[in-house]
Amino acid sequence: SSDSSADSADPATSGKYTTLDVTNQNGVCKIQLNRPKKKNAITIDMYNEWAAALAEADKDPSVVLAVVTGAGDYYCSGNDLNNFMGVKPENMSKMAQDSSVLLQNFVDAFINFSKPLIGVVNGPAVGVAVTTMGLFDLVYATDKATFHTPFSSLGQSPEGCSSYTFPKILGPMKAAEMLLFNKKISAAEACKLGLVTEVFPDQSFQTEVWERINSYAKFPKGGYGLTLPEITLRQMPKFSFIPNS
Amino acid sequence: SSDSSADSADPATSGKYTTLDVTNQNGVCKIQLNRPKKKNAITIDMYNEWAAALAEADKDPSVVLAVVTGAGDYYCSGNDLNNFMGVKPENMSKMAQDSSVLLQNFVDAFINFSKPLIGVVNGPAVGVAVTTMGLFDLVYATDKATFHTPFSSLGQSPEGCSSYTFPKILGPMKAAEMLLFNKKISAAEACKLGLVTEVFPDQSFQTEVWERINSYAKFPKGGYGLTLPEITLRQMPKFSFIPNS
Amino acid sequence: SSDSSADSADPATSGKYTTLDVTNQNGVCKIQLNRPKKKNAITIDMYNEWAAALAEADKDPSVVLAVVTGAGDYYCSGNDLNNFMGVKPENMSKMAQDSSVLLQNFVDAFINFSKPLIGVVNGPAVGVAVTTMGLFDLVYATDKATFHTPFSSLGQSPEGCSSYTFPKILGPMKAAEMLLFNKKISAAEACKLGLVTEVFPDQSFQTEVWERINSYAKFPKGGYGLTLPEITLRQMPKFSFIPNS
Repeated sequence: SSDSSADSADPATSGKYTTLDVTNQNGVCKIQLNRPKKKNAITIDMYNEWAAALAEADKDPSVVLAVVTGAGDYYCSGNDLNNFMGVKPENMSKMAQDSSVLLQNFVDAFINFSKPLIGVVNGPAVGVAVTTMGLFDLVYATDKATFHTPFSSLGQSPEGCSSYTFPKILGPMKAAEMLLFNKKISAAEACKLGLVTEVFPDQSFQTEVWERINSYAKFPKGGYGLTLPEITLRQMPKFSFIPNS
Repeated sequence: SSDSSADSADPATSGKYTTLDVTNQNGVCKIQLNRPKKKNAITIDMYNEWAAALAEADKDPSVVLAVVTGAGDYYCSGNDLNNFMGVKPENMSKMAQDSSVLLQNFVDAFINFSKPLIGVVNGPAVGVAVTTMGLFDLVYATDKATFHTPFSSLGQSPEGCSSYTFPKILGPMKAAEMLLFNKKISAAEACKLGLVTEVFPDQSFQTEVWERINSYAKFPKGGYGLTLPEITLRQMPKFSFIPNS
Repeated sequence: SSDSSADSADPATSGKYTTLDVTNQNGVCKIQLNRPKKKNAITIDMYNEWAAALAEADKDPSVVLAVVTGAGDYYCSGNDLNNFMGVKPENMSKMAQDSSVLLQNFVDAFINFSKPLIGVVNGPAVGVAVTTMGLFDLVYATDKATFHTPFSSLGQSPEGCSSYTFPKILGPMKAAEMLLFNKKISAAEACKLGLVTEVFPDQSFQTEVWERINSYAKFPKGGYGLTLPEITLRQMPKFSFIPNS
């Protein structure tokens, strides 16, 4: 039940995305997850298009910063479970390998994004939509948003660099509750814990947030260029991560 | 005035501990510090037994997670000062060396514990009982708990990896107040600072906490195995710590 | 319009500072920024004298800890913009080089300070007075204090190690808002985010804070010596920072 079966020839061209609505205006590239009927669940196409849209925004000199948000009531309900269904036993191994490459490319698109990256969380976020939140520079959330990472109860591991970012952002005592024990938290709790920058009343959310984002896009670009790579958590592993030897 | 003078033949056997009450039930290994009349002050025997109980729980395949808690009104009043009293001058140097090995083994038992480790802080915690708190994955506390590390006023250094974990958990501005200037904090403050995961009213503390812990023990084990070593602060030095060279 | 044009022969001698008021009493070295009419804006002389005062306090065996505070209503309004004005085009390159050396020496004086360093923020702090806050061990603030780092809007980069300390102290989601997008925060917010240890009502601020600081100076010195270098954020780069290679 994917609504993105159409194989677009060149997903890296704005306007040609089938699962996203991407717009550029006054320096702001808005990447909107656009499967509202499916709560913006991420299909294989959406993983690829999301990564392509980030890469495109990074290269485009007219883009000052990028925003990711969802269409409709949900920010994103996580991985579309149809991605992993109907796989024949003999194809299981290949699918696991393909999924691994898919996710790696998806996360790399975040890590390599060199401009300010802002999450506008318009509703509930689940799974990979939560774990990737530590790769953003700012996260603004409506007070109707919730954050849920139900991995352990499914016998799965959290992805999106969350095992790296969550202990740093939330502290270990709170990260474990979310990542090991599936604790679902509200926008207010997420903000108190540092996963969200600021929470807004749902009624004025879009107005307040976009006013602020548009003002950020008017700042001189020089300041970002030098500071961002040093402060963004998504590039810290390049500075300090040492593999377990 | 130690109540644990009995030299048990094999402290690594459940039921044979003299300073602890250790039980295994439905995947939960409960390690209860059991010197309530002494506010669960840690004798030399208790250091050794606590380490042995952690090692035993880690090896036991029936154990999903371990909990440390105290019997009576105190969680733990820290190091039993009798450990260091009545030492003759000629034995001082050997005692210092023995203590160092004892503490190293005790901390290693935490660092090497590979399953979820939960602190159930049923009352005041002092000294090494506080400094080791950064080695747990979750800490649930009664609202009657307090946290106190009176090292500087005694001219001592804090142990239990706290100089590593506390700045990461509390941030430097708050860690210094506790570790350098002996600030005693409440359970509510500890929770706000990230040292405690959640605080419960004392009246419902045991019921609420154990209900939650028992539910955690029913999760599929696969999820923990992969995630825990990456997010637990007690194993982070293995990943990223570089000694001052 | 600098009020520190007098070239004092030896700025490293207490009482001879022209931009600071430095006193030693009962183990506490109080370094007071003393240009209240200029909101304690930092002239080139003040950069040098501040660094010299820290070095002097570090060497003086009678000093247990040092405090930095401001005279008048402001803590410090940041870099005195006169430092960079009236420079002739042919001298621009040399001035940039001189400024870089000046700032490096200033920051080094913090990093090399081996005793507890306490900020007593008596009013608004701006720019470099905020970015250096992550190099203190404790920061006590009046509820009238505010914290503002308007670098991006000027096309400048934040200094004072803030790109290193701020993400660690505030978390990335809040650090970006301050360092990239110039968000001005109140003392209460700064405390909630970990940049300030405690906030006091302005009316009782001086009394409460100095009572506490004087009590700290009476602690045995042994405890600090071993613990401080391990927990202070200003010395952490020595332990764990690995340059991007």
